[in-house]
Order: sequence, then C-alpha cells, then structure tokens
Amino acid sequence: MSTMTPSREDRFSFGLWTVGWTGTDPFGGPSRPSLDPWEYAERLAELGAWGITFHDNDVFPLDADEATVRDRVGRLRAAADAAGLVIEMVTTNTFSHPVFKDGGLTSNDRSVRRYGLRKVLRAVDLAAEVGASTFVMWGGREGSEYDGSKDLHSAFERYKEGLDTVASYIKAQGHDLRIALEPKPNEPRGDIFLPTVGHALAMIAELEHGDIVGLNPETGHEQMANLNYTHQLAQALWSGKLFHLDLNGQRGLKYDQDLVFGHGDLLSAFFTVDLLENGFAGNPDAPRYDGPRHFDYKPSRTEHLPGVWESARACMQTYLLLADKARAFRADPRVTEAMAYAGVGSLAEPTLAPGESLADFLAADEHHDPDELAQRDFGFVRLNQLAVEHLVG
Amino acid sequence: MSTMTPSREDRFSFGLWTVGWTGTDPFGGPSRPSLDPWEYAERLAELGAWGITFHDNDVFPLDADEATVRDRVGRLRAAADAAGLVIEMVTTNTFSHPVFKDGGLTSNDRSVRRYGLRKVLRAVDLAAEVGASTFVMWGGREGSEYDGSKDLHSAFERYKEGLDTVASYIKAQGHDLRIALEPKPNEPRGDIFLPTVGHALAMIAELEHGDIVGLNPETGHEQMANLNYTHQLAQALWSGKLFHLDLNGQRGLKYDQDLVFGHGDLLSAFFTVDLLENGFAGNPDAPRYDGPRHFDYKPSRTEHLPGVWESARACMQTYLLLADKARAFRADPRVTEAMAYAGVGSLAEPTLAPGESLADFLAADEHHDPDELAQRDFGFVRLNQLAVEHLVG
Amino acid sequence: MSTMTPSREDRFSFGLWTVGWTGTDPFGGPSRPSLDPWEYAERLAELGAWGITFHDNDVFPLDADEATVRDRVGRLRAAADAAGLVIEMVTTNTFSHPVFKDGGLTSNDRSVRRYGLRKVLRAVDLAAEVGASTFVMWGGREGSEYDGSKDLHSAFERYKEGLDTVASYIKAQGHDLRIALEPKPNEPRGDIFLPTVGHALAMIAELEHGDIVGLNPETGHEQMANLNYTHQLAQALWSGKLFHLDLNGQRGLKYDQDLVFGHGDLLSAFFTVDLLENGFAGNPDAPRYDGPRHFDYKPSRTEHLPGVWESARACMQTYLLLADKARAFRADPRVTEAMAYAGVGSLAEPTLAPGESLADFLAADEHHDPDELAQRDFGFVRLNQLAVEHLVG
Amino acid sequence: MSTMTPSREDRFSFGLWTVGWTGTDPFGGPSRPSLDPWEYAERLAELGAWGITFHDNDVFPLDADEATVRDRVGRLRAAADAAGLVIEMVTTNTFSHPVFKDGGLTSNDRSVRRYGLRKVLRAVDLAAEVGASTFVMWGGREGSEYDGSKDLHSAFERYKEGLDTVASYIKAQGHDLRIALEPKPNEPRGDIFLPTVGHALAMIAELEHGDIVGLNPETGHEQMANLNYTHQLAQALWSGKLFHLDLNGQRGLKYDQDLVFGHGDLLSAFFTVDLLENGFAGNPDAPRYDGPRHFDYKPSRTEHLPGVWESARACMQTYLLLADKARAFRADPRVTEAMAYAGVGSLAEPTLAPGESLADFLAADEHHDPDELAQRDFGFVRLNQLAVEHLVG
Repeated sequence: MSTMTPSREDRFSFGLWTVGWTGTDPFGGPSRPSLDPWEYAERLAELGAWGITFHDNDVFPLDADEATVRDRVGRLRAAADAAGLVIEMVTTNTFSHPVFKDGGLTSNDRSVRRYGLRKVLRAVDLAAEVGASTFVMWGGREGSEYDGSKDLHSAFERYKEGLDTVASYIKAQGHDLRIALEPKPNEPRGDIFLPTVGHALAMIAELEHGDIVGLNPETGHEQMANLNYTHQLAQALWSGKLFHLDLNGQRGLKYDQDLVFGHGDLLSAFFTVDLLENGFAGNPDAPRYDGPRHFDYKPSRTEHLPGVWESARACMQTYLLLADKARAFRADPRVTEAMAYAGVGSLAEPTLAPGESLADFLAADEHHDPDELAQRDFGFVRLNQLAVEHLVG
Repeated sequence: MSTMTPSREDRFSFGLWTVGWTGTDPFGGPSRPSLDPWEYAERLAELGAWGITFHDNDVFPLDADEATVRDRVGRLRAAADAAGLVIEMVTTNTFSHPVFKDGGLTSNDRSVRRYGLRKVLRAVDLAAEVGASTFVMWGGREGSEYDGSKDLHSAFERYKEGLDTVASYIKAQGHDLRIALEPKPNEPRGDIFLPTVGHALAMIAELEHGDIVGLNPETGHEQMANLNYTHQLAQALWSGKLFHLDLNGQRGLKYDQDLVFGHGDLLSAFFTVDLLENGFAGNPDAPRYDGPRHFDYKPSRTEHLPGVWESARACMQTYLLLADKARAFRADPRVTEAMAYAGVGSLAEPTLAPGESLADFLAADEHHDPDELAQRDFGFVRLNQLAVEHLVG
Repeated sequence: MSTMTPSREDRFSFGLWTVGWTGTDPFGGPSRPSLDPWEYAERLAELGAWGITFHDNDVFPLDADEATVRDRVGRLRAAADAAGLVIEMVTTNTFSHPVFKDGGLTSNDRSVRRYGLRKVLRAVDLAAEVGASTFVMWGGREGSEYDGSKDLHSAFERYKEGLDTVASYIKAQGHDLRIALEPKPNEPRGDIFLPTVGHALAMIAELEHGDIVGLNPETGHEQMANLNYTHQLAQALWSGKLFHLDLNGQRGLKYDQDLVFGHGDLLSAFFTVDLLENGFAGNPDAPRYDGPRHFDYKPSRTEHLPGVWESARACMQTYLLLADKARAFRADPRVTEAMAYAGVGSLAEPTLAPGESLADFLAADEHHDPDELAQRDFGFVRLNQLAVEHLVG
Repeated sequence: MSTMTPSREDRFSFGLWTVGWTGTDPFGGPSRPSLDPWEYAERLAELGAWGITFHDNDVFPLDADEATVRDRVGRLRAAADAAGLVIEMVTTNTFSHPVFKDGGLTSNDRSVRRYGLRKVLRAVDLAAEVGASTFVMWGGREGSEYDGSKDLHSAFERYKEGLDTVASYIKAQGHDLRIALEPKPNEPRGDIFLPTVGHALAMIAELEHGDIVGLNPETGHEQMANLNYTHQLAQALWSGKLFHLDLNGQRGLKYDQDLVFGHGDLLSAFFTVDLLENGFAGNPDAPRYDGPRHFDYKPSRTEHLPGVWESARACMQTYLLLADKARAFRADPRVTEAMAYAGVGSLAEPTLAPGESLADFLAADEHHDPDELAQRDFGFVRLNQLAVEHLVG
C-alpha cells in the first residue's frame, strides 16, 4: 500500500468552495457547518496542498462593503501566508444571486450585463491583488432552457464583448493574469453556451484579445457532454490553450457529481494523469502542461467534517498513485514494444515527406494495396491491457 | 391537414446512401434490395427533391478501375440531369474498408494515411467534375477506443496536415469548392476526433487554409454529445462557418439513429427550422444560412421499398410543416409582445454604449441594485408555450 | 389557436411544491418569494385545476409541534374546500433534512431508519385524514454514491421491510389508501435504488402487501434512465400497477429539469397523452388509466410569480392540446388504414391459436419461408409521420 | 506484475460470437477472417477457458438442413470435448435475419411470431442436447422505434405468451435447463422491451412458469440505461434470479461497445467482481452467485487474429486481477474498521426488532433528535478511497 504523501512540489490546489461546500443540493439543506474561508486554508496546507483558489463570494458576501471585503480578504491572505499557501487562481461568482438568473454577460437584461461586467472587473483586480496568475470564468448561467428565449447570434456577440472587455482591462491594468474559460454543457441552465472545450476554443479564436484567454477544463463537465476528458485536454494543449484545469470525478450522464478525482472513470483518470505527468505518448516535441493540479470536487453530503478532510486527502493521494503507475507504465519495455507494434510513434511522422510537394505526392509511383494494409493487427487491446495491468496489478 | 408539396425552390437534397441504405446494422443483414444509384435519383426528383449528394463509393466500388468509375458516374450524372437534380455535395468514404480501421488521415499507419489522402484528393476532383459546391469530410474512423493507442498531439497535427493538404489542393486546382467538416462524438470509434461543432471550429482556426473550410453539422451527431443542435448551428453561423447541414432525427443518447427529420426531438426541430427560415429571432443584422436543406437519415430497417420513399417524403413534409409554423410564430403579435417582455431583442444592444470606453464605464455613476434587478419576470416559459401552441395548436 | 380551458372533469392536479418552488438550485438561491401553501391552492383552482397534492413538510416544518401541524393543515384544507379542490395525494419528505442523507428506509443508521419509518407512518395518517387516495413514496435518498458503502442485499431487505410495514399499517388502520412508488435513477444520490418502473415493479412482486402498492412514474425520471416514458406507463398498466403519475418535461440526460409538460420530448408527450386518453392503440380489452393527471414540474428559475402561474397554465393547456390531437389521430381513416397495414391490431391475436396445444403447434404442417416473410413493408415510418402531421399540421 | 493464469476452476466461458466477430459494424465491413466455430473452441481452451456458448446460427446457417446441423454441431461438440470445454449455455438468434426485423415473439406479424417460436423451441432442444444448463433469450428486436407502431399491451401479452410457451416446453421435455433473459435498452431497436434487469424481473413475476426463468444481465447493456451494473446484479440476486451473466466493458452512453471486461468503468468492474467473489459486503446470510463467469465482448475492429486472442486473454486476466484485489480489500483491517464506521453491517439488522409489532413500535417511547442523528459522519468517501487504494496501490 502506498505511503505517498503530497508535497508543495506536487502543486496541488483546492477551491475553497470544494471543502467549503456544506451539502445543500436541489433536494436538501446543508449537512455540515460552514467554516470561515481562512479555516480551510490552514487545514489544506497541513494535508499537503500547495495552493488555494476562490470565488469572490466564497470570501465575502455579494453586498459586502469595502471594509468588510478588505477585512475578510486580509484574513484569508494572512492565513494563506502563514500556511505557506499560494493563491493561484481567483474567479467570480456570477451565478448564485438571482440577478444572474439569465446570465451575467449574456443576460437579456442590459442592466444585468453592466452590473455583471463590473463585478467581473472588480474580481479581476482582486485576483491580481492576491497574486493569482489565472482568472477563471465559468459562465454557468450563460445559456437558456428554451431556444426561443435568446437571439443566439447576439448571445455570442455579447459573450465575445464581455470576454474582450475583461481581457483588455487586464492588459490595461498591466495585471500578470490570464483568463481561463471553464466549459460546461448544462446545469444549472438547460443548455449552457460554450458547452465543451471545443466551443470555448472556437470562441477564443474570434476574440480580439484571445492571446490571454485559454481554458480551464473540468473532468466531469466534459464527461457530461459524453466526451473523453483526456482528448479534451489534448486538443486544448495542442491549441496552446491549456491554462488551468479542474480535476474531479463523474459517473456518467447525470447531474454534476464533483466526486473525488479518480472516484469516477478511473481508467480515464489514469490516462489524464499520464498526459499531465508524461506528456503525449513520449513525444518530446509536443507541448506539456505545467500549471497547478487543481481539484474542483465536493465531499459527499453523507460526510461530516472528518469526511471533508478525508476526501481532500483522497484527491491528492489518487493523483500520486496514478502518477506513479503512469511512470511505471511508460518505463515498461513491454509497453515500449506494444507502442511500436501499434504504430503510436509513427503518427508524429508527417504524412507528406519533408519537402514533398503536393505535385510530388500526386506524381509518386506509390501503390498501396488496401486489402494488404488492412491485414495489420494494431494490438490496441493488448496495449490497453498493459495499462490495466499496470494500474491494477 | 397540410397539402404542402416540396418544390425545387425549397432546395431539399438527399444523400444517395440514405434512401440507398439496405438495413444492415450491427445485429442483422439487409432487409431490402439495393438499387443502382441512378435509380434513386429519378425517384427523389419525383418526390420534389432538388439535389442529391453521394460518397464516391456509393457510386462505384473502392477498387473500381477508371472505366467503371467513368461509366457509373456518367450514368448517375445523366440520370440527375434528366431528372433536373443538382449534385450539390460530394464526399468520400474513408470508413468502410478495413484499411481505414484506425482512420484515414490520422491512422497510426503512415501508408494508410498516404493511401487515404490520395483517395480524398481523387474524390475532390470528382466533386468538382460533377459540379458540387461542397465537399464534406466526415472523419468517422479518425479516433480511438483507448487513450494509450494514440499520440493525441500528433493526431491533431496529422488531421491539420490532412485538411490543409486537401484545402490547398482545392485552391491549386482552382475548384469552386468548399470543405465542410462533419463532427460526431462516437460510433464507429469509441471517441472520434472533432466530436462536436465546437471542436471542428477550433480545428479550423488552426488551419492555414481555413478560409475554405467550414462545418456540416448533423442533428443527431450533436445530440449524441448531449448538445442542443440549434445552438450548434448558431455558433457555426456566428463564426461564419455554416457551409452545409445534415438534418435528421435522434431520440436521445444511443446509437446513431438517423431517423426522419422531426421524428426525434420535435420541439428542437421546430427551432432549427425557425433559425434556418427566419434567422436569429428577427435580428436583421445576423448572418443567415442559405445552403441546401440536406437530409442524412435512414429509412427504418422495418420498411421495404415503399417505406423508403415514404420516409424521404416525410423528411421534406415535416420541414415544410415546421417552416409554416415557424413563420406564423414569428408573425404572431403575442409572440412579438412576449419577446419584448423577455428582452430577446435587447441582447443585440452592446453592453457598453457606442463609444463608451472602459474608463467611461468604470467611471460611470451607475448603481444597479441586484435585488431589484432580480425581481424581473422574464416570461421565458410563456414564450416557449406560445411556440408549443403554434406547433401543436 | 386553441381556446381550450381546463375544467374539473379533466382532473388536473398539482403538487404544492411545484408552483411553490422558489428557484433554489445547486448553484443559486431563491429567485422568487415563498407563499403560504393555502395561497397556491386558490390560484390553482382559478386556473382550472381539480386537485392538489403535497409533502408533509410543504405544509409544516419537520419540527412542527402538533398544534402547528393542526393549524397549518386546517388552513390548507379550508382553502382547498373553499376553492373546490380535492387533495388527491399526499407524500412525505424523507430527503431534505440531513438526517436522511443516507436515506430513510435504507440508511446504514438504524436509528435513522426507525425515525424515518415513524415519519412515513405519520404522513400516512395525514394522507388518510385529508382524504387522499394515493400515498406516494419517492425514495430519493435511498441509494449510494459508492458500491462499497452498502450491503446491497440488506438494502433491498430493508426497503422491502419498510414498504411492507407501511402497507400493513395502512391496512391495519383501514385507510382507503394505496401506495405509489416513484422511481428515479439518480439525483440527489449517485445511484438510487428502484431506478426505473421496472425495478419498482420487481420490488412490489417481492412484497407481502404488494396488492396495495403500485407506481407513480414521472416523465423526466424515466427519461433520465434513457428510457421511453410511454413504454414505462405501458408496462406498469399491463402489470395492473399504474396507480398515479407525474407529468413533466425533460430534455435528455442531465439533471432533473422538471420542465412544463410538453416542453421536453413533445412527440413522446403526444403518445403519452394518447395512451392516457385513448388507451392501447384502440385495443378494447387492454387496461386503462383512470387516475388524476398530476403535474410534477418546476417553473423555471428565470420566472417571477407571473411566470409561475403561466407555467402551471401551460401544463394543462399542452395536455388538452395533445389530447385533442390524439383523438383526431385515432379518428383519421388514414391512420386506421396505416395501422392495419402495419399489423398493429394483429398483435392482440395470440401466437398460438385458441385451444392450440404445444403438441398441436409442433405437429402443425406450417412452412413459413423467412425470406418471403421478410419482404413485408411494415409502414411504421408512414404511420409515425401521420402522427407528426396530426401533431403539427 | 501479475502472473495469474486462468484455470478451469475459474469457470470462464466465452460466446463463440465474441472471438468470432469479424468486425462488421454499421459503417464498415469485416476486418478479419471468419474461422469455423470449432476452431475457436480449441484456442479458447488453450487460453484457460472452461466453457463456450453459442447462438444456433453461430454454428449453422438459418436455412441449414438437418444433415448440416448434425454435422456442424457434431464437429463443434467433438472439438469442445477434445479441448475439455463445457458448453454451458446456448441461445438463439432471432435478430439477424430480416424476417425478425420487427421482433420474433412480439412481431406485428403473427406468421413471424409462429416462425420465431418454432426456431426458439428447436434451439431449446439443441441446448439440452449439448448439455447446456442455461438458455439465454435476448430479445434484441423485440421493440419499436415509434410509439404508434405497437399495441404495447399486446406486446407484453405476446412476450409473456412466448416466454411461458418456451418455459412450459422445457418442462414438458424434461430438459434440465433454465431460461435467462438478457435485457438491453436499445440497439438495434430504438426502444427494446424489457430494457433493464428491473423490467425483466417484473415480466418474470407475471409468468406462469417464471420459476425456471431468470436473468442474464450484461455489463454494458445496463450501463446503456445509465444504471449501476453492480446494483443490477444485486437486485437480481436478491430476487433469486441471477442465473447467468455477461461481462464486458462500456464507456458511457453510446452504441454497444462490448469492450474487454474492465476496459470500461474499471472501478465498477472491481465492485462487480467483489460481489461475485465475496458476496454482499461480507453478509453471510445473503445469496451468492455460483454460475459461470461468462464474457460477451468484441475484440476491437482494429485487431487482426492476434488481437482476438489477446483480448480474450485480457478478459480473464482482468477478472483474476480484480478478484485478487477484492479479496485483499475485504481482508484489510482498515476496511473492516471503515465498514463498521460507515454502518455497512448494520443494514442487515431489521428496522423493527425481532418480534416487535407495529403497535409496539408506535407505542415505543423513542425520541430521535434528527439534528443530532444528522451529525453522523458516514465516512463513505474514505471507504471508497480504500477501494481505490487497493485497486491502484
């Protein structure tokens, strides 16, 4: 049994709203008490975390006056400093108060949009102030239940306007901060705009200030769109846009479960960690993720405070266990052999030869017999079984 | 009861593989005979279709010699001409032959990639030759079942290389042809690359020749990713990339059903037609789709030839019925009032005023009370009920 | 446009918790005020409802003393009487208070089970007192997130014990009351026991007092298990167990949306209403449902009080519109013809002839050529298109 | 790394159609050759299998004459005998030939029903002849795409008639054979009757000869209904009806993937094996499964013959690895402690005390404070993490 313990070098971080979730769900009230934000910080540090993250209103209420904001943010920073914790990311809550019931940046009500935009900009300054390097934007209420309730073209226009305004503000203020969009397909809205990594990347491509806008993909959110999370990370990385991530667990197509990382699809979690730790199948030229390992999960409502801390510990432990297994997997000569058999490395070779023009290609006297090529045994199942064997064996 | 009949002006088109599907599925063989491609054309024209589309191997076998290709394509073109049918789109089959079992452009086997690329380029020439304006690329086998079987970074690199090669070839040949990517999340692969409209848009943004590459979103494919099809069309249109579409029906998260258009999620189909016929909620400045109304469906396996034609007729009839309802919906003064009440039109108004700078905005003495703004009743349910009333009433 | 207005004869009923939902969801607080239960009753009656239903704690808090219970139940009954409303069903809340975080009847904590059982029995007496004929049991917290957290055999044993205890209590008290189980696959638990109509029917078959236990299937709940709701009603009816139902709308596999009836899968809603109003495809020998048309939905959180009433009205209006269309569908001679063509009526004919023994059957000189039989065109698509035409036309 | 090798004592069995699948799917033809049935038998035995199973038409064509049937069955039996393999289950194919396009026992065409019934009865005799103890019935084509195409009441009547006829025939013939129904929610039909374990149990409860009818639940099929497979096995076992099972892997809500066991939801597979090997959470009074460990999977289409055998080997190896881990999990004192902490064992204690009557219970002076009971920390996450740690550690 592993005795691995997390350390600062692992760069694990937790949202205050994760351990701070008191268990309220659509069918029931809180099942455990709420602590002050600074109380969570100390304990997370003890467990081995390196950083914390928060929404503005995890720390102070939406209607707090400036003095209260100063006081509460100050106490949190002091606690983080004392515990040696980094505040690596800050985000803003534009979903809990009913003013945002039709969204913040894309509400049909322009006054709400202006109110929301101000709130976001204030949170950007807060992020910079506390030293965060990432500003996450989850547009949980940007969406609709009914297709007729939105001019969808204008919704995308307003989303773009809002994102560009925030990005240009960051630049104007000289903040050392990047925006990371967090996609989600649904919940709390019937259909949320920018439902997946793909849609967010497509939005970013349309922005004026897209250079400082990237992605914060969450395991469960992508899986709620019936997608492979590791593939999502891969496309974001390939596009140079994997700025941050939210690790957790989800068991299929249902409400957002926010389970402990690894308590959902474990085999998928293995390959996620493999990508994060070992990069793309040993490809030395491919981009790597070097940001925090951030958990966005919820301790199950059946747990009281002891279970809160056990679940935070479990997130980190599972990650470390999987990282260990992934390293062994990549180091195993049988895996190297099976990867070669499967042609995994050959995919890095361009289809056209270096310098080969289209004309050369078309003129080439190259006759492939499809029936013959089709005889190849790729051995993908054996390669996958080696992963299972490493994981379980 | 409606007596609407389709006409050439409606620009309905059908894939030859739709009416030509003989009913083979994973658990059973064909349930009806296969006709020659030209036999379908005549009948579709009689039913009111304006155009046809096909995969290269719907018309001739993969291993056909040039004479056979000429002969069969010639007979199809003659039949189309005789029937007054346009061949508006051509695509290539890089999924049926086992040579493509690990994909065409992203196979781990470079020889397969080169073989596949040649096949695609040949189909491009065929598309140009028969006068098609769109060349669809559905990468149904580009994907994986096992995360370990692919260097995902290289998979995206190869996909990009392949698409750019095809696009540059089109330009080099001077073909008046645009590429339309068709996303799908899974089936026949466990996870297909470019699983949704968003992912395909994100890929296009990375291409060198992305200017002639757009989307061909299919109703059921997007719904298999648990997404709202109309939202998908909207984002593609907003991005200037809705080049073509595939209309059909799907009943939830299962195998690709390819039902008759409207036989899946009918309310969603209503808003899809509304978007296609009436644009974005009456927004006169928003882009419009003006391509063909293309059906990519399968007559159920329980049907023999009479059912094949009935189902083709049903696709067009449902579209016309929904278009009629959508026009009445938009013309109803109660709808106009409910849209105003819901603020649908206000979303077109920029959040910042014309000429308002960030500095102006931040300096503005504007105090919105969130509690007061939150009192607004958006009336979205009433507006949706008006749609249901129009649809069913 | 229809001017249909609901009347008492339509027997529409509403849960107080439906119109009474204030908009709290996992990501936000209430978006509208809470009225007293009796205030909803009057308004529902004005809109045309015939009955109301409630959980014990919709009317009085869990910790209310007897005097408070008497007072509040009395005021509700008085309001219902004054408005001419029937209280047709009562249920109990064993999910909101955190004591039930691991379930009521199947909690791992025996004290909780005993506490829960007492609460249920008290609610049974309340149901009888207010004249309800159905006592719904939704075991929303009976379940688990983790397979290891339950002795699943004992969970079924305890569920059975609980249900049999409640049923035997009803008999012992001489209440004229039947229990209706409400299945749901997940939310708020990761996996709920008795996830579908099938599982609840299977449980009932194991009960000692199953004769007074039946089903209360909810549209969205069955659809969250990826199932056809009308098929669920059909199996419950066929088993003699369709005691009650919960009509609403759901758009695919996601959180429990509780949309207005018909605002989800509209074509499915059409056939649901057809089954409820016209029975099984005109089969005169098949059982019929004659209970209330009960709505269990939530007015969207974007709506304030006006939207609450509009949405309640919409539920009834959609039902009446669909009922009207379903009657016309069944009366259309083209439908009669298409049903005959499809062999719909022939399914009522036993496979073995009356009196035909197994021996007779095996001895019969009957040679069916499968290839010939396979030529049949069932015309199912045409029949479905007639439904679409009626619905939309 | 494990060196575990399967032996006859493990009672692993394989369908001939699993290793025999040649890769034909809805979008492509075969990717590898088809062997004769007896060729698979020998090789499976070498790999460590104990038994084989088959559909009638895996061995001989639907239109085979009696001599062909005799010859081919004889050769298969000889091969099985030579290899020391048991033929433990036989089933019948009522789904591949287009005669069954609307089902076998519930087709709208009575001639088809009679033809289908004869085919099933012949297969029953074959099953008995080859010494099988289980006769699986998967009604893959019993269902519909369109609600209007069926009199659903009669569909259930005919299904019941068919099952009772087959069961009574088994009894009449004196065969030592039990029927096991295999539920599936969809594919190849839009909605299949008896979509889940629950529905099949509910059907069995209505049969006259239900005593010899039980279940054959398949991992992926239940997961396609968004359900927890281990819960399904549990309810079947609790109902005394787990006669057989089909182990494989599925990755979420999509087409039926039939992956290698463990290559889908691995954590779920762990608890499935734990239930099969160790029973219900150590409950000594709970029923146990003692039938074969039967795999119903498909070697991925990317594999040629070597991959076929590797994948069969992988199914057995994963099972053995998981069984080993599950034994260690149950033997770990930390797990025992965590289970006690979580109250897992307490669920076996009846809610009412032995001999406690309803009157006693109601009269008992027992005051549970719900707020106090709600303080309990169940420690479910920690217990689950122990499982993850054992599995991965």
